[in-house]
Amino acid sequence: MALRVGVIGGGQLARMMVPPAVHLGLEISVLAETEGSSARLAATQVGDYHDVETVLAFARGVDAITFDHEHVPQTVLRALVDAGVEVHPSPEALFVAQDKLVMRERLSALGLPVPDWARLETAADLDAFLADHGGRVVVKTARGGYDGKGVRVVSSSHEVADWFDGLSDPATGGALLAEELVDFRRELAQSVARRPSGEIVAWPVVESIQRDGVCAEVLAPAPRSTGRIADIAEDIARRVATELGVTGVLAVELFETNDDRILINELAMRPHNTGHWSIDGSTTSQFEQHLRAVLDLPLGDTGTHADWSVMVNVLGGPSDGTMANRLPALMADQPGAKVHDYGKEPRPGRKVGHVTTLGDDLDDVVYRARAAAEFFAG
Amino acid sequence: MALRVGVIGGGQLARMMVPPAVHLGLEISVLAETEGSSARLAATQVGDYHDVETVLAFARGVDAITFDHEHVPQTVLRALVDAGVEVHPSPEALFVAQDKLVMRERLSALGLPVPDWARLETAADLDAFLADHGGRVVVKTARGGYDGKGVRVVSSSHEVADWFDGLSDPATGGALLAEELVDFRRELAQSVARRPSGEIVAWPVVESIQRDGVCAEVLAPAPRSTGRIADIAEDIARRVATELGVTGVLAVELFETNDDRILINELAMRPHNTGHWSIDGSTTSQFEQHLRAVLDLPLGDTGTHADWSVMVNVLGGPSDGTMANRLPALMADQPGAKVHDYGKEPRPGRKVGHVTTLGDDLDDVVYRARAAAEFFAG
Repeated sequence: MALRVGVIGGGQLARMMVPPAVHLGLEISVLAETEGSSARLAATQVGDYHDVETVLAFARGVDAITFDHEHVPQTVLRALVDAGVEVHPSPEALFVAQDKLVMRERLSALGLPVPDWARLETAADLDAFLADHGGRVVVKTARGGYDGKGVRVVSSSHEVADWFDGLSDPATGGALLAEELVDFRRELAQSVARRPSGEIVAWPVVESIQRDGVCAEVLAPAPRSTGRIADIAEDIARRVATELGVTGVLAVELFETNDDRILINELAMRPHNTGHWSIDGSTTSQFEQHLRAVLDLPLGDTGTHADWSVMVNVLGGPSDGTMANRLPALMADQPGAKVHDYGKEPRPGRKVGHVTTLGDDLDDVVYRARAAAEFFAG
Repeated sequence: MALRVGVIGGGQLARMMVPPAVHLGLEISVLAETEGSSARLAATQVGDYHDVETVLAFARGVDAITFDHEHVPQTVLRALVDAGVEVHPSPEALFVAQDKLVMRERLSALGLPVPDWARLETAADLDAFLADHGGRVVVKTARGGYDGKGVRVVSSSHEVADWFDGLSDPATGGALLAEELVDFRRELAQSVARRPSGEIVAWPVVESIQRDGVCAEVLAPAPRSTGRIADIAEDIARRVATELGVTGVLAVELFETNDDRILINELAMRPHNTGHWSIDGSTTSQFEQHLRAVLDLPLGDTGTHADWSVMVNVLGGPSDGTMANRLPALMADQPGAKVHDYGKEPRPGRKVGHVTTLGDDLDDVVYRARAAAEFFAG
């Protein structure tokens, strides 16, 4: 019997789990939110992941359930576990990724390096935090944010008055998170995979270049990531995975500060945009590794095919059609570029695909990746 | 609109077209012979490819039709073309791959190097060919053979009396093919891809090791393939592709003779077992390239990720279950091996999967590939 994995959520992360499932002989099924989802090829069911019965029916007969996103409610996750379903990552681990305040509390309790932070229930809490941190800080909603949404840099509590007003809704968790504005040199990301029986493997730490709060480019490995930086990043991610009991891929977004500290920014308990380079650049991609990990199969080699891999997101996509229209021109120009089209309708700012290039000269690899992605812009 | 490709036949070649289709954002559909085919994930229809109406209905709305195998009847292929469907390779090209006598005639007429051969309509024809070629020759059925089926080494016409008796069936083409028994050092294979607008790219020539008439192992590139051998092999394949108007991937199986000649053995106008290494070992796999070629998209870079890639077939598979049962042990032993499980029931001699390893020391890469495949044997 083939091993069977069910993925909740039909986005591009579920879509990109399909190729390694095909190669490894795994049966993959997807519970998609809508018809025509990015992962439609494997979408055996369209339904609401908030509905316990829908999700229980979807999970029947699979060897493991995993996720395209972190939004499945705890009540649904717990019902799956109670029904004897293998759920990876576990509800306990996912809870930490679902609430930024819980995350900060857990990471701080573990002694892991995080920016200064505070729990905000009132404007007065924020005023106090502002006074202690130079009058300008980051405020985040505890739940529901992604890709820069739910994040504001503020100098006054008036700038998040709407968020404070909204805290009476229990779905918000009842509080906001304030963080110091970190004086950072650059952003890094460290991905690891951990299987239930405990094995962990790490890819090289990468540099992530953000634009408007969204990941725009990833350089793998991070340039000038000396042994020290790479060691610290990997050690942090291994500790997070172990201490929080994460199963599957864990991506830890990091700040490299101007005073040479490494601080944890965010966690994602699933394949992550900063790991897409691994599809073309690593012996084992983050998508194959995630499938292996959630099925408790031994993990794969994370060596790289080239000195440098660079991934550039296609954000928004062509204004006059789809990525497919631009494929011939790109392919003619760059026979070595690896194009990934998520099968989504172009829309301003939307992640509709990415391009990866490999090589031994970083400047050249970056140039080619940017030029390739540019074919799909405007 | 996404580009749409339809594949006739639901075997492992169709299955392995799915991953690159997903990445490139192509919509792929498969007309499978049976439920539960190897390519079942993309099988939008189950039906008989001998039936014109079935195939015409399947082809509606696709940008190109291509194939998992070469068995679609000419009448069906011509009906598709008449209906305005892009068919790649074309019926004219496929005709040459469907009939070994036609192939020999065309290749000989083009002056390409082939073993001595003869068309046999009667036992007397074979007796004459035997007399001229040392009393021991190869006889092949003109149509329908694959993986060693339809091939016999004979010293007397009695040994193929059943085949002569069968020639009254027009499906046989009415004749057999006799070939000299080539005194060869080893077998090579040269794959190229050609798009309708004429562009051709080649992968490195590989060595193919056969057991019982079936491809067992492939070493890429072929060891000790000096510039001369590589150049001749590539030149032959480019000429075949151009002269026969092949579109998509063309694999040319070659003999390297003990007197240092390169002779054409067989042609396959589709991704081929000798090119499976390219999934893990080349920037552009033969499956991605085939999709690009049949859609007339510019072709991809055929550079390699490592000095050596070695592929070993999993023939038969485990006697006590499926490949999935053996996956954990293999993965624990070889985190760098790339496993491909075709999702087929094990059966003696059946190709149910393959394993590829990469590295810079050929002996080590061969050892690891064989050891990996061994996990699925017995």
